[in-house]
Amino acid sequence: MRSYAAICGSKEKEGVVGSYADITLSDDMYGESTYEKAECKMLSNAIRLSVKKSGLEEADIDALFSGDLLNQIISASFAARDFDFPFLGLYSACSTMSESMLLSAALISGGFAENCVAATGSHFATAERQYRYPLELGCTRPPQSQWTVTGAGACVISSQEGDIEIANATLGKVCDWGITDVNNMGAAMAPAAADTLLRHFSDTGTTPADYDVIITGDLGALGSRILKDLMWERGCDISSNHVDCGEIIYKVIEDEFQGGSGAGCSAVVMNSLIFTKMHAGLYKRVLFAATGALLSTVSSGQGESIPCISHAVELEVRREG
Amino acid sequence: MRSYAAICGSKEKEGVVGSYADITLSDDMYGESTYEKAECKMLSNAIRLSVKKSGLEEADIDALFSGDLLNQIISASFAARDFDFPFLGLYSACSTMSESMLLSAALISGGFAENCVAATGSHFATAERQYRYPLELGCTRPPQSQWTVTGAGACVISSQEGDIEIANATLGKVCDWGITDVNNMGAAMAPAAADTLLRHFSDTGTTPADYDVIITGDLGALGSRILKDLMWERGCDISSNHVDCGEIIYKVIEDEFQGGSGAGCSAVVMNSLIFTKMHAGLYKRVLFAATGALLSTVSSGQGESIPCISHAVELEVRREG
Repeated sequence: MRSYAAICGSKEKEGVVGSYADITLSDDMYGESTYEKAECKMLSNAIRLSVKKSGLEEADIDALFSGDLLNQIISASFAARDFDFPFLGLYSACSTMSESMLLSAALISGGFAENCVAATGSHFATAERQYRYPLELGCTRPPQSQWTVTGAGACVISSQEGDIEIANATLGKVCDWGITDVNNMGAAMAPAAADTLLRHFSDTGTTPADYDVIITGDLGALGSRILKDLMWERGCDISSNHVDCGEIIYKVIEDEFQGGSGAGCSAVVMNSLIFTKMHAGLYKRVLFAATGALLSTVSSGQGESIPCISHAVELEVRREG
Repeated sequence: MRSYAAICGSKEKEGVVGSYADITLSDDMYGESTYEKAECKMLSNAIRLSVKKSGLEEADIDALFSGDLLNQIISASFAARDFDFPFLGLYSACSTMSESMLLSAALISGGFAENCVAATGSHFATAERQYRYPLELGCTRPPQSQWTVTGAGACVISSQEGDIEIANATLGKVCDWGITDVNNMGAAMAPAAADTLLRHFSDTGTTPADYDVIITGDLGALGSRILKDLMWERGCDISSNHVDCGEIIYKVIEDEFQGGSGAGCSAVVMNSLIFTKMHAGLYKRVLFAATGALLSTVSSGQGESIPCISHAVELEVRREG
């Protein structure tokens, strides 16, 4: 990895990522006429900034892997329009950050690309409008709910070794334990995270103790407790080094209840706080498993439960770095 | 490639793919209670059938690359729930077939997988409901419009050589020439196809004459004419061997006007007609450039034009095959 960049909203900057993000917004409209355009602008600027920080030119980028939560991933598609490099659109809900990172690494490792950008983001107001209710309605939020993060993150993954390396990855499988409560994403996604983490430990012959941090995407407080229970039941105790991006992103938990969510949640936390700490040598080996809920308003309306997925990437700081 | 499978709807089976598709529907509800569930079932069955025809077990599949046109790609996500192999969700509108094929080939060529499934599909009734008007309204269709194909296609791409090989690929860049008419997808997508084809010829040192067929996704009749004009203006005449899946899929053009469209359009044509002809040795070298329009109802509603993309894969029949 050559560089990373993150942009976060006004609520997010009060929290743990505020002092690490490259750009923090005072107005979540970001000077645009709609929230959707603001979301796209955040993503576009995170991509541009990550390329600038890498020291590369835009012409050096071989592919952008990106997606977001909006219908037809318009934030990613319209952000990609701003650049002259190829675009590979993804949809993996809130697990887009790790999917885009692992596909970038695979394309590079296979010799098909030298530099790829992995990026995603989300916006509280666009997610509420699309998945839940118009903000103007002022609906009461249930206590198991989470708050979609306003923010975007991007990183440049390169064949030239940087100090942070993608050492391994485990692809997610769709897990559906029958949760139908669309406000309880943490419970729906925890089994997918457990499945991926257990397969990762098994495939790589590692244990939780081999990692400085095991960081999940956006399970929130409740989902994180469920994950730790599920792992413990399978004989795998991650309680001492597990952190969830959704659980830590907000300073105070008021209306956010279980914490942050959204594709931007892990994108911002990883591309500011975590990579900075890795760069500084505070973390040597990190297992990052972003989590995504693959539902839509149509699938829920037709009585379906919530299929979830989690893709994991293992990040290592090079010894001589 | 080890195998391929296609399912098509009742209107599609009257056309050129009818005698090549593995399953043809007499009722486009496919025994389900909603069109969305029918679309998902087509995709799931196309995946299952392609794996079965490959002679592999489901446990041999390392990854499924899939996406579709519905919000949050629910057809692909819910189809993936039916299988125990990893899932990588994509969104590239009607260019999903080539995106999924090239990423499968890259993952395999890089040594990260042995067998991948690339799959996509669409359904006329779900696309109309989501992108345009409820069918019950009986809206008049403008003459530049196309008809979303009901169908799904899947292929198993493998490290073990089959008779059809993915020899090369060119990643698409987002092209937006300012078209805002959401009924005129052919005109919007033609520049993206031209950009990708020209870069493919330039990067690989080939000319149109090197291919038995140059096949685009779903430009339709009007879009195909625009593409041929755009290519000709750049000194590249593809008129003698260009075919468009959307232009050829329907037997008679009545309500379909410019022909077929949708992610299922090229998925069905490639995974029935084209691969069968390649398998039979009628085509030795095929350049397949699926085309996608990356708009949403929200982006159009906010006054945006239509960004488009086209990913190309070059397919070759092995000489000794």
